[in-house]
Amino acid sequence: MAEKAHINSIEECLEKHIPGGELADIKRILYGKELQNLDLPKSALKLALDNDFEIRGYGMPATPEEMRPPRIVRVGVIQNQIVLPTSAPIVSQRNALHCRIEQMVDAASICGVNVICFQEAWTMPFAFCTREKMPWCEFAESAENGPTTCFCQELAKKYNMVIISPILERDEMKGDVLWNTAVVISNTGQVLGKTRKNHIPRVGDFNESTYYMESTLGHPVFNTQWGKIAVNICYGRHHPQNWMMYGINGAEIVFNPSATVGALSEPLWGIEARNAAIANSYFTCAINRVGTEHFPNEFTSGDGKPAHKDFGHFFGSSYVAAPDGSRTPGLSRNRDGLLVVELDLNMCRQVRDKWGFRMTQRLELYAESLNQAVQLDFRPQVVNENGPKQNTTK
Amino acid sequence: MAEKAHINSIEECLEKHIPGGELADIKRILYGKELQNLDLPKSALKLALDNDFEIRGYGMPATPEEMRPPRIVRVGVIQNQIVLPTSAPIVSQRNALHCRIEQMVDAASICGVNVICFQEAWTMPFAFCTREKMPWCEFAESAENGPTTCFCQELAKKYNMVIISPILERDEMKGDVLWNTAVVISNTGQVLGKTRKNHIPRVGDFNESTYYMESTLGHPVFNTQWGKIAVNICYGRHHPQNWMMYGINGAEIVFNPSATVGALSEPLWGIEARNAAIANSYFTCAINRVGTEHFPNEFTSGDGKPAHKDFGHFFGSSYVAAPDGSRTPGLSRNRDGLLVVELDLNMCRQVRDKWGFRMTQRLELYAESLNQAVQLDFRPQVVNENGPKQNTTK
Repeated sequence: MAEKAHINSIEECLEKHIPGGELADIKRILYGKELQNLDLPKSALKLALDNDFEIRGYGMPATPEEMRPPRIVRVGVIQNQIVLPTSAPIVSQRNALHCRIEQMVDAASICGVNVICFQEAWTMPFAFCTREKMPWCEFAESAENGPTTCFCQELAKKYNMVIISPILERDEMKGDVLWNTAVVISNTGQVLGKTRKNHIPRVGDFNESTYYMESTLGHPVFNTQWGKIAVNICYGRHHPQNWMMYGINGAEIVFNPSATVGALSEPLWGIEARNAAIANSYFTCAINRVGTEHFPNEFTSGDGKPAHKDFGHFFGSSYVAAPDGSRTPGLSRNRDGLLVVELDLNMCRQVRDKWGFRMTQRLELYAESLNQAVQLDFRPQVVNENGPKQNTTK
Repeated sequence: MAEKAHINSIEECLEKHIPGGELADIKRILYGKELQNLDLPKSALKLALDNDFEIRGYGMPATPEEMRPPRIVRVGVIQNQIVLPTSAPIVSQRNALHCRIEQMVDAASICGVNVICFQEAWTMPFAFCTREKMPWCEFAESAENGPTTCFCQELAKKYNMVIISPILERDEMKGDVLWNTAVVISNTGQVLGKTRKNHIPRVGDFNESTYYMESTLGHPVFNTQWGKIAVNICYGRHHPQNWMMYGINGAEIVFNPSATVGALSEPLWGIEARNAAIANSYFTCAINRVGTEHFPNEFTSGDGKPAHKDFGHFFGSSYVAAPDGSRTPGLSRNRDGLLVVELDLNMCRQVRDKWGFRMTQRLELYAESLNQAVQLDFRPQVVNENGPKQNTTK
C-alpha cells in the first residue's frame, strides 16, 4: 500500500538520525516547549510488555499561581487494532474488544489516569466503507444501557475514572435510528450524557450518512471531577467552527476519537487537532485507530480501481496538544498503544491571558458575517478592477 | 537568545541527516504530497547569488480536467531584513528597503511571478515594541498615493505583476488615523483596493493598538487577472473565523504577511496558515520577516526582565500551503529570500469536491450558535452530574 510507510513514528526516526544540538532545535520548532517524561509504574510497563501494547507518558505542567492551586489531570488515550476477524460473530468481536480494552484500562489505572477516551466506534471494525447494512448495524447499541455502556460503567466505578466511550448508537426510543455517538461516563459510574458526531464525511470510502446523520445535540461540554471535557468525533476535526463552539461552551480538554487512513489524511493529522488547541486555548487529544481491517466481501471505492477487501492502513499516531501549541510525540503508526499525559488545566487560562485569542476574537463580527453568509441573497465581498470602488467609508 | 536556533531550516536538517527511504516517509507525513521543483532561470539564480538572497521554486499542480483548462499562477513571497540601522533618517531607511525589494522583485519577474506579496509593514522596522510614537509614526503613508504605493505601481506596470504591499497606513482623509494595511495593486498599475488587519495583538512586546485598531473593512477579496486573492495580516492567522470569511468571500489564495519572533510563536508557525489552507480549500502564503532589529532606546517587555534594545529574532521560514494540505519547505530562518510557487488554482475546487468541507460545514448551525454566544444572557451548554438531564429531545 502506498500509504503504509516503513517508519514506526516520525519521532523515533528523528531521534535516531539527527544529532543532539540540531535535534533540540528541530523538536522545539516541530513540537514546541519540551515536555516532561512521566515516570510510569513498572507494573504498568510490564502489563504493556506482556500484552503487546506501547505505553508512553508525558507531563504538560503550567506555571504556579498564587490564587489557584494546580489543577492536575491525567488523561489517557487508547488506540487499538480490532482483535478478531471481521467474519467472527458480532458478540465475539465485541467481547474480544472489551477484553482488550480492559487490559489497557487496567494499565491506565496503574498510571493514575483520571479521564480516558477510546477510539471512534471502538467496539467494532470501521465497516462503513462496505456500504453493507448487515451485519454491521448489529454492532449498534443503546448509549444509556447497552452492553458496552454497562461494561464501561463497571470499569469507571472500579477505577474511579471518567470514560469516554465512542460507539455506534441505536436510539431505540426514537425510531431505532443510528448515530455516531460518544457516551460520557462519570467516575461514579453514572452516564453523564452523550454527544454525537456533528459533521459527517462524504469522502473516499466513507459516506457515513449511509448509516447515520449529523448530530442535533449541539456542542455539549461535560463537567467532570477533573475538568470540563468535550468530544469532537472524527471528521469534525476538519471544521474549525466545531472546535470553536466546544471552546465557547467552556471545554478545557477536547477529545477527538477518529478512524482515518491514507496518504490524503496523514499529513493533516498533526495539524488540525493541534491548531484547535492553539486557537481555542484548550487541550486536545487526537486518537486514531491502528492497523488494517479486512472485510468478508469486496467493495469498490469510487476511485476507478478494482474491488478490494480493505481500505488501507489506520496510521495510529495518537497525540495530545496543549494550549501553548506544544504536543506530545505520536504513538506508533503500527501498534496498539496507551498514551498517558499529565495536564495542568490552569494552562488554559494562562495561555488565554498571554495570547489573548478569546479577547481579540471579535465574535460579534463573525456572528453578523455568518448571518449574512447564510442568506439566500448573500453576495461575497469582492473587489473588481472595473467594478464600483471599494467601500471604505467606515 | 534562547529562540535563535543553530539550524538554518528544518528541511535542510532533515535532508542532511535522514537516510533516503525514511526521508521519503518523513517528508510525506510532515509535508504532504511531494512537490515539483521549479526550474528557475539562471539569471534569476545569479541575481540572488550576487545580492545575497535565497531563491527557491516549487510546483503545486492540479489534476487535468475536461471542462476547465488549468489556471496556472506563479506567486512570489519575499522575506527580508531591514537594510539600514533603525537610527538612520526615515526616508533613507524606506528608500533602502525600496531598493532591496526592487532587486528581489526583479528576480521574481525573471521567474515569471504573477502575484507577489511582501512582509507586514515592509517599509520600516517593526518598531511597535518600543511604544514610542516618534519617529516611527512617520513611516505611515497614504495607501492611495503615498510614496510606497507609487513605487509599487511602477513595479506592477513594469513587470505586469499584481503586488500586495503591506504598509503602515495613514488615512489622511479621515482624521490622520493609522492603520495596519495591505494595498493591493493590479498588474495594470491601478490600486485595486486595500484591506486592513482584522485582529490586533496585545501580547508580549506588541500591544499594537498603541498605534492602530481593528479593521472595519470586513474581509474583502480582490479579483485579479490571476485569481481571487485576499490578505490576512499577521495576528489574524490565529483566528480560524477570519480565515473562514475570506474563504466564504471566494478567496483562492490568502496571503499572510507577518512579523513574528520567539519560542512561543515558532512552533505555531507551520500549523496555522496550513490548517487554514486545509479547512478552507484554498492556497495560503505565510510570510515572516527575518533578522534581529535593534532600536535606539531601550524598552521593557512586561516580562520582569531588564530593559533591552531588541525583542528577538524574526525567524523567517516563509512557506506556501495547498488545499490538499501539502506545503513547501520554509525559506531560511536567517536570510532574505524569495519563494516562487507555481499553483494551479483548479486544485481549490478539486479538493472541495474531494473532501467536501464546505458542503459539510453547516454554516447555518454556526450562524445560530454564534448569535446565541454573543448574547448577554448566553449560557454555555454544560452538562453537570447532578444538574438537569441533558436535553436530547431533538
